[in-house]
Amino acid sequence: MGSVVIDRIGIVCWMSIAAINSTLLRQSGRAARRFSIMASTQQGKVGKNKVQFSLKTPKGTKDWSDKDVVIREEIFSRLSGLFKRHGGITLDTPVFELREILAGKYGEDSKLIYNLDDQGGELCSLRYDLTVPFARFIAMNNIQSMKRYHIAKVYRRDQPAMTKGRMREFYQCDFDIAGSYDSMIPDAEALSIVVEGLSTLGIKDYKIKLNHRKILDGIFQVAGVSDENVRKISSAVDKLDKSPWEVVKHEMVVEKGQTEETADKIGEYVKLNGTLQEVYSILSQDVSITSNEKAKQGLDEMATLIKYSEALEIDSHISFDLSLARGLDYYTGIIFEAVTSASAPPKNAAELKKKAKGAEDASEYVGVGSIVGGGRYDNLVNMFAESTGKKSGQIPCVGLSFGVERIFSILKQRAEQASTIRPSATKVYVMAFGGGKDWAGYLPERMKVAKQLWNAGVATEFVYKAKSNPRKQFDAADKCGCPLAVILGKEEYLDNKLRVKRLGPEFANDDGELIDAADLVDVVKRKLEEIYQDGTDEVTKLFSQL
Amino acid sequence: MGSVVIDRIGIVCWMSIAAINSTLLRQSGRAARRFSIMASTQQGKVGKNKVQFSLKTPKGTKDWSDKDVVIREEIFSRLSGLFKRHGGITLDTPVFELREILAGKYGEDSKLIYNLDDQGGELCSLRYDLTVPFARFIAMNNIQSMKRYHIAKVYRRDQPAMTKGRMREFYQCDFDIAGSYDSMIPDAEALSIVVEGLSTLGIKDYKIKLNHRKILDGIFQVAGVSDENVRKISSAVDKLDKSPWEVVKHEMVVEKGQTEETADKIGEYVKLNGTLQEVYSILSQDVSITSNEKAKQGLDEMATLIKYSEALEIDSHISFDLSLARGLDYYTGIIFEAVTSASAPPKNAAELKKKAKGAEDASEYVGVGSIVGGGRYDNLVNMFAESTGKKSGQIPCVGLSFGVERIFSILKQRAEQASTIRPSATKVYVMAFGGGKDWAGYLPERMKVAKQLWNAGVATEFVYKAKSNPRKQFDAADKCGCPLAVILGKEEYLDNKLRVKRLGPEFANDDGELIDAADLVDVVKRKLEEIYQDGTDEVTKLFSQL
Repeated sequence: MGSVVIDRIGIVCWMSIAAINSTLLRQSGRAARRFSIMASTQQGKVGKNKVQFSLKTPKGTKDWSDKDVVIREEIFSRLSGLFKRHGGITLDTPVFELREILAGKYGEDSKLIYNLDDQGGELCSLRYDLTVPFARFIAMNNIQSMKRYHIAKVYRRDQPAMTKGRMREFYQCDFDIAGSYDSMIPDAEALSIVVEGLSTLGIKDYKIKLNHRKILDGIFQVAGVSDENVRKISSAVDKLDKSPWEVVKHEMVVEKGQTEETADKIGEYVKLNGTLQEVYSILSQDVSITSNEKAKQGLDEMATLIKYSEALEIDSHISFDLSLARGLDYYTGIIFEAVTSASAPPKNAAELKKKAKGAEDASEYVGVGSIVGGGRYDNLVNMFAESTGKKSGQIPCVGLSFGVERIFSILKQRAEQASTIRPSATKVYVMAFGGGKDWAGYLPERMKVAKQLWNAGVATEFVYKAKSNPRKQFDAADKCGCPLAVILGKEEYLDNKLRVKRLGPEFANDDGELIDAADLVDVVKRKLEEIYQDGTDEVTKLFSQL
Repeated sequence: MGSVVIDRIGIVCWMSIAAINSTLLRQSGRAARRFSIMASTQQGKVGKNKVQFSLKTPKGTKDWSDKDVVIREEIFSRLSGLFKRHGGITLDTPVFELREILAGKYGEDSKLIYNLDDQGGELCSLRYDLTVPFARFIAMNNIQSMKRYHIAKVYRRDQPAMTKGRMREFYQCDFDIAGSYDSMIPDAEALSIVVEGLSTLGIKDYKIKLNHRKILDGIFQVAGVSDENVRKISSAVDKLDKSPWEVVKHEMVVEKGQTEETADKIGEYVKLNGTLQEVYSILSQDVSITSNEKAKQGLDEMATLIKYSEALEIDSHISFDLSLARGLDYYTGIIFEAVTSASAPPKNAAELKKKAKGAEDASEYVGVGSIVGGGRYDNLVNMFAESTGKKSGQIPCVGLSFGVERIFSILKQRAEQASTIRPSATKVYVMAFGGGKDWAGYLPERMKVAKQLWNAGVATEFVYKAKSNPRKQFDAADKCGCPLAVILGKEEYLDNKLRVKRLGPEFANDDGELIDAADLVDVVKRKLEEIYQDGTDEVTKLFSQL
C-alpha cells in the first residue's frame, strides 16, 4: 500500500494536500465534500506534505466494461432465461452474511473468507459462495421445496491467478432444486439444464462426465478401504484428470497407507468409462459390486437416471466415468462435470502465461478445467435446519454451477476472431449536413428526430455539438460502430425529407435513401430488420458461431 | 450478537457441538467440511457445550425473492433498456475499492463506510455509491468521454429505517454522461431520460423540479450572502420542501447570522416557481439578477436548455423551482429532482409505520421524497485526474440516479392491488392422467413433452413424481399459477393425442382441446399468444397500470 508501484493499471499519483484542499474549496462534492485531514493521514503517507496513492482496483478484482461486459451480460441473460424456462425463481441474498453463518462451512478454506471490520455491531463476512446463503435462506424460512437460480459475485482472499481466471471477486451462476421428490427426476432435469445451457451458449464440443458417490464409495469398500479413509482416497482419485494412475496409486499406497491390492482393485474400476449403458451393464454384471449395499443402491439409481436421460435426449452427451470423484465432500448422490476441448489450454499456453504475468485480464488464456459442475447434496440444508431445532430439516438438493468466468474466456477468444462485438447498442446516428454562417446546425431538429427513434425503442445517438461538420459526425458514428445514419440535409429537411444511409466502408459511395420525414420510424425499423436478419445482432451472432 | 432474540426473522438456534460434529462426520460438505472448533469459539458462546446463533440476514439487509425480485428485475431491465437506447455502456466495478479511493470523499458521512478487515493486504472498503468508482474508472483509464450506466448495490452503515426504505445494502441505478460538449446538450438528454424512464415504469403523475446552481449562488450574492456562507445558506434553502419559509428564515438569521434583509431578499426569489418560460422571463427582466455575472451565466444556460427541452418535448414535465437546492455540494450546473404524488406517504402512514416497526421489508410504506435526482458536476473526475498529475483532468459530467427502492415501493403497492404477479415464469404444466396398477404414470413421456417445450423456449414444469393423481398435479399447477396445462391421457396419448387446457377457476368445466402430439408446440404458442395478448404478461401489465 502506498509504495511506488507502476504496474499495468496502478498509476502512482502525488497530490499536495494544499492542492486537494484548494480543489475541494473550489468544488467539494458528492465525491468530494469537506476533505478530512484524517483521510490523508489514514493513508499513512503525509511525508513532505504529499498524499500518495495509486489509482487501481483492489488486488484480484477488475472493472468489467466495454466488449467484455457485453459478452458477459449476454451469457447471464441466456442462462437466466434457461433457468426461468425450468421454473427457476431467482434469489438475491445480501453480499455479506453473519460470520457465524459461514463459520465452519469451508474447513481449511475458511482463511480465504473476507471479514468486514468489527464496527461495534454484528460480525459479518462477504459470501464465499452462493450455496451457503441458499441453504441459510431455505432453513430460515422453513421452505420445503424451491427451484432457485442465483447469478452473483462471490469473494475469496485467494492468491489471484488472472491467467487461470482465478480472481478474488468473481461470478457464480447456480441453479439448485431443493425438495423431496421421487428418485433421479430433478437430477435428470439438472443434467438437461447443463445440456441446454451449453447449447444456448454455442458450446458444442463438450461431454458431461458423470459418476455416483454411492457407487464410488461402494467400490472403495469392496477394495478394502476402511470407512474413515474413504474421503481421503476419494480425493486421491479426484486427481486422475491431472495425474497418471501410477502417481495416484503411489499417493494411495505410500501417503495414504492402502495395500497394493486395494489400490490395484480401485485402479481396475476407476479406469472404467463409456456410455451410461456400457458402464452400467459392466457394473451390474459384477457380483462384488452388486453385492455391496451402497454400490447396489447407486447402481439402481443410475438405472433410473438412464431411463430419464434417454427421455430427455441427453444420454448421448453423458460419459459414465468412474474416475470422477469431485473435490467437495458433501455430495451424496450423482456428481457431474462438463468439460470441453476449448477448456484445455491452447498450444501456446506457457508463452501466454508468461505474457499474462500479473495481468488483470482473466481472459488472457483459457484455463484448464470443467465449465459446469454439480451434483446431489442431501444433508446441507439439514445442517442449518437442525441448528434451529427443526426435525423436518431434511431438504434434499441437487444443483449445478456454470463456470461463467471460464465460459467467458472461451467466448472472448471467439469474440477476438469475430471483432464485430461493440460496447454500445446504438443502431442509428442522427446527423445534419449544411453550411454557411446563417445555418445554426439543426441541433434541435436532430433532437426531435432522435426523440422519435427513442420513443420507437431504437437506440440512437447524435453529436453533442450545436454545429458539426459531416466528417466529425461520420467519425463519431464509426467510433460507436452503428450501422445506420439518419441525415438532415440543409435543404432536404426544409422539404420534410430525411436521408437514411447505411454506414461502413462498403457503403462509402452509397448516398442512401431520401424518405419522407413522416416515414422515418417505419423505414429505420425496416432497414434494421434487413441488417440484423433473423433478428440477431453482433452479440447473438457470436454465440451461434462454432 | 448471540443474545436470545426471537424477532420476525431471527430464529434462535441451539446445536450441541457433539451434534454438529456427528452431523458433519456423516455429511461434511461444500457448506460443511471439517467443522472447526475455532468457528464456534469465534462466536464467543461455547458455554455448556452449546453453540448459539440466529438464522437471519445482517441488520439492514434482506433477501430479495418471490414477487419482489420479479418486480425489481423488471424495473432494472426497463431502465437498462432505456440507458442502452441512449448509447449507454454499462460498467461493473468491484464491490470494494481501495480505502484511499473513498477517503475524504463523503465528509462526515465517511463514518458510514463499511471497511473490510485489515488482513495484511490492501485496505479496502465497500463502495458507498457508484459515482466515486465511476470517477476513479474515468481518471484511471484517462477516458475523455463516456455514457455509462450502472445498476448495483451500495453499502452504508446507516441506522436502518425499513419503513422509509433506508437499508444498509441497497441498489443505485445511475446514468452519467462524461465529456466536454456544447452547453446543455447532454443536460437536456439527461432530463429526457428521466421523462422516458418514468414513463417506461408506468409512473405518470410526476413533475421534475429544476434549478441551476449558478442562478441560486447568484441570488445569494445579490441578497448579500458572503461566498464562504453560500453552501450553508444553500442547505438551509434545501429544507424548504419540508419546512415552511418562516422556519428556514429563522435558521438563516438566527443560526447562520444573515440579516433580515438578506433573508427576505432570498425569500422573494426562492418562492418563485412555474414553467421554464414563466420563471425565465421573470428572472431575465430582473436587473439585479441579469447584472450578477454568475446568475446571468446560469440564466443564459437555462435559455439554451429551454430550447432543447422543447425540441425533446419534455418541457411540460419540468417546473423551474428556485427553492430546489439539493443537499450535495458538488453540483456546478443544473440540478433536478423528480417527485410524484405516489412518493408522498399514504393517509395511514403513521399506522403503517407503527406496524412496520423493525420490519425488514423496505416496501411497507412508500417514503416521502424524490424518485429521481441528478445534476451537473464538472469537477469531480478532476479530483482523481489531478491526483495522477494529468493536466487534462477536467472531465465535465452530468448524471442522474433513479431511486429504485422508492420506485419499487410504489410498484409493489400496485402489485398488491393487481395480485397477478407470480414468482415463476412457468407457462405450461405437463400432466398425465391415468390409473390402474398396470399404469406407470407416463413420467418419461411427460419429460419428452416438457423437453419439446423447453427447446421451443416455453417455460414448462411437471410434477417430480413417477405417478401422480390429477388433483395433486392441478394443485401444483395452481401453486405456480401458470395458465396452461398439457395433459397426457392414458388412452389419448397412445393415439398420439395431447390435451391442451386453460387453467384457473373460470375454466374448471372446460375440458380443453384434444390435439395431435405433432402440433404441440404450435398450439401451445398460439394459445399463449391469446392469453398474453399484445405480448404482455402479468409483470408487463403491472407497469402499464395507472
